[in-house]
Order: sequence, then C-alpha cells, then structure tokens
Amino acid sequence: MQLFIGNKNYSSWSLRAWYLLSKFNISFTEQQLVLDTPDFYDRLKTKFPVQKVPALIDGDLAVWDSLAICEYINDAYLNGRAWPENLNKRAHARSVAAEMHSGFLALRNEMPMNIRAKRHVELSEHAKKDIARIDEIFSMRPQSSSNTWLYGEFSIVDAMFAPVVLRFKTYQVTLSSPAQAYCDQVLSCPVLNNWIAHALQETDIVTRDEAGENII
Amino acid sequence: MQLFIGNKNYSSWSLRAWYLLSKFNISFTEQQLVLDTPDFYDRLKTKFPVQKVPALIDGDLAVWDSLAICEYINDAYLNGRAWPENLNKRAHARSVAAEMHSGFLALRNEMPMNIRAKRHVELSEHAKKDIARIDEIFSMRPQSSSNTWLYGEFSIVDAMFAPVVLRFKTYQVTLSSPAQAYCDQVLSCPVLNNWIAHALQETDIVTRDEAGENII
Repeated sequence: MQLFIGNKNYSSWSLRAWYLLSKFNISFTEQQLVLDTPDFYDRLKTKFPVQKVPALIDGDLAVWDSLAICEYINDAYLNGRAWPENLNKRAHARSVAAEMHSGFLALRNEMPMNIRAKRHVELSEHAKKDIARIDEIFSMRPQSSSNTWLYGEFSIVDAMFAPVVLRFKTYQVTLSSPAQAYCDQVLSCPVLNNWIAHALQETDIVTRDEAGENII
Repeated sequence: MQLFIGNKNYSSWSLRAWYLLSKFNISFTEQQLVLDTPDFYDRLKTKFPVQKVPALIDGDLAVWDSLAICEYINDAYLNGRAWPENLNKRAHARSVAAEMHSGFLALRNEMPMNIRAKRHVELSEHAKKDIARIDEIFSMRPQSSSNTWLYGEFSIVDAMFAPVVLRFKTYQVTLSSPAQAYCDQVLSCPVLNNWIAHALQETDIVTRDEAGENII
C-alpha cells in the first residue's frame, strides 16, 4: 500500500490519512511529493483522477480524499474500529468529522498549517467563530480519564483534527482549559511527533502556505 | 425521525439527505425552515450544535451534515445498501462523494441551486474545471444498461450529485452525451420530481442564493 503525501510541514490533509494509518500500525509505503511542483502533478496524474494529496494506492485500487481514505482503511483493515462502536456515538463522530472535512474555511485560509513557524495573526470574525466551535468540540471529550481521545478510543475524528491542534500551536491560540488539555494530549502522541520531527527537517518553501497579509 | 431542511428551491445540501431517505422509502417527518431567517436559527439552536441544514433527529440522537446523515442512514436503516457492496467500488464511490462534499467551490459559488430559475452565467476557469471533472464522473457510470445509477444501484453518490444535475439544467450547461444521459435519468426520477414540484411552488426569495454579478 502506498500513501502519497505532500510536505509534512504544510500538508494538513496528508497528515490526516497518514496519522490514521500510522496510529493503527498499518503497514504502508510513504510516497512524498513536494506540493505544487510539476513532479507533484505528473506523479499523481498517472494514478488518480484528481491531483491532490493524500491519495492511496492499494493493489489495483486508487482512493483519494482524506475522509474517503480513512473510511476505506476502516472498512478494509480495521473492521470498523476507526469509528466509535456505538451507533449513536458513531453518527455524532461522523457529524463532527464532516464539519472538518467541508468547513472551517476561515480558519483554514487564515491559519494554514506550518509546523515549523510560530505566528500571531489578526483573525477575522469568521475564523474566531471557527475556533470557538472547535474549542467546543475539543472540550466535549469524555472526562472520565485524562488520557482519552475525543470519543474515548482514538478515532478518525482525532486524525481529522490533528492538523488543527498543530495550527493552534503555531498561531498561539488561547483555548479553554479542557480544549487545551486535549491539544496537549495530541501533541504528546509519539506517532504525531514522528511526523512533526520530519516536518522540522524539511526546507522547501511553499509560498501559498506561508500566509501573508494577516501576519502581525 | 425528523429531517430539518431549508427551502426546496435553494437548499442543495438539504436535498442530498432528503433524496437518500426518500429514495429508500425511509419514513420521516419533514421539518422545513426558511433559510436565513431568525426562526431558522432559533429552531436549530435548541437541537444542534451547528445551525445548518440538513439536520436529523432520530429519537435522542442528533446528526448534522449531509454526508454524516447519509452514512448514519446507511448504517442504521439500510445495512450498508446505500454504498456499493464491493469494497473497492465502495472506496471509489466514497472518494467521489468526498470530492463533492469538500470541493467544487467555484461551481457552488457561481451556480447556486435555484430550481425555478433559468440562467446563463459567465463562468470562471475554476468553475469550468469543476464542470469538466463532474462530466467525467457522470460519464463513468456502467454502460451495460441505460437505466443505471453512477455505481449501478442508486447510492449516496447519486444523492450527493443530484443538486449538481439541477444546477446544470438551471444554468443550461452543455455536457458530453454520456454525462447528459445520466442527468436525463436523474431528472426523470419520480422521487426527485416530487422535490422539484414543491420547489416550484415556493415563493420565498433568499437573496444570497439569487446569484448576481455573473448573470448575463
């Protein structure tokens, strides 16, 4: 199985699929491409109808889009373990994952993932609303144990929100204390730290993701 | 089970969930709200963390987001029948549904769903690319029979793309002949025509969705 990803410093969608696969110890080969280069498009074009990362090749099968890859891995390798087992909790988790998949556009635009940077930015009201909603999501995790994920066990939702946790660190966002406690837990995950360590070694600059106007 | 939807003329995301439920003959009560009114936000606020439609109440459970609702219905009521049965086809279908869920932003912005309108608009290059990709998706359906859906049986993918078929009609978009044949089939579906008939009777105007600048 080959997972095509972009620069670890910048590619938040790549991280989602990579994190799920890695956290569940599923064996795969990493195919890293430098975002926005001719080679990036050429390599993807021969295998996928859409030239975006993450993208997965498993035998004859091509799967693209972070959420579709997570659902496929859940189906094909995890016997459903990547979502909560309880039907109602699973529906709730899918609602929250879908919010991330299709939304939070202001946050995504104004705070692009950039692991090696440390920034303060002036945020729009829309971005502030996005942060407030995510704070609410992070705060609702079970309080029974200090070491649980958003729905107890690690799930696709945690993978979907991991890049947001990294953004909150880069842009030094102040969160409620339960939300910050969740972020701290994510940031202490050894699997995620493996990604971060590689991101910090990268030197390519992707201009589009180096933010701009809003940096103060 | 109650499904909260917006105006049938405009609310493309509502249509997706409504179409899936209706096409599979799942019994539900329609709770229609007029988009962008104080009543809209008030009614949703008491039940859902996000004030958007579609949104579903099933007993004690609240589910929001079109794709999450479709996945829940598939899980809870259809024993998986809303996706292709074959694992690889299912992964492909989920990739395509995810493209619609998170993408085609230019098409969505420049061609808002407006069933009762007939329009010509000047499209950006991005919107033209979106249309070309969707033409490709519509053209890949099995050619074995003239009456099949995108993956053979009706699936979540057909529900996800139904509003696009309606947009192509409103904005009089020229497609390849296999893609147009798929659109014609969707437009002849009695369940979808039930939605269309109600849309045509609506008189509320949602300014935001009445497009604007690009109309020629």
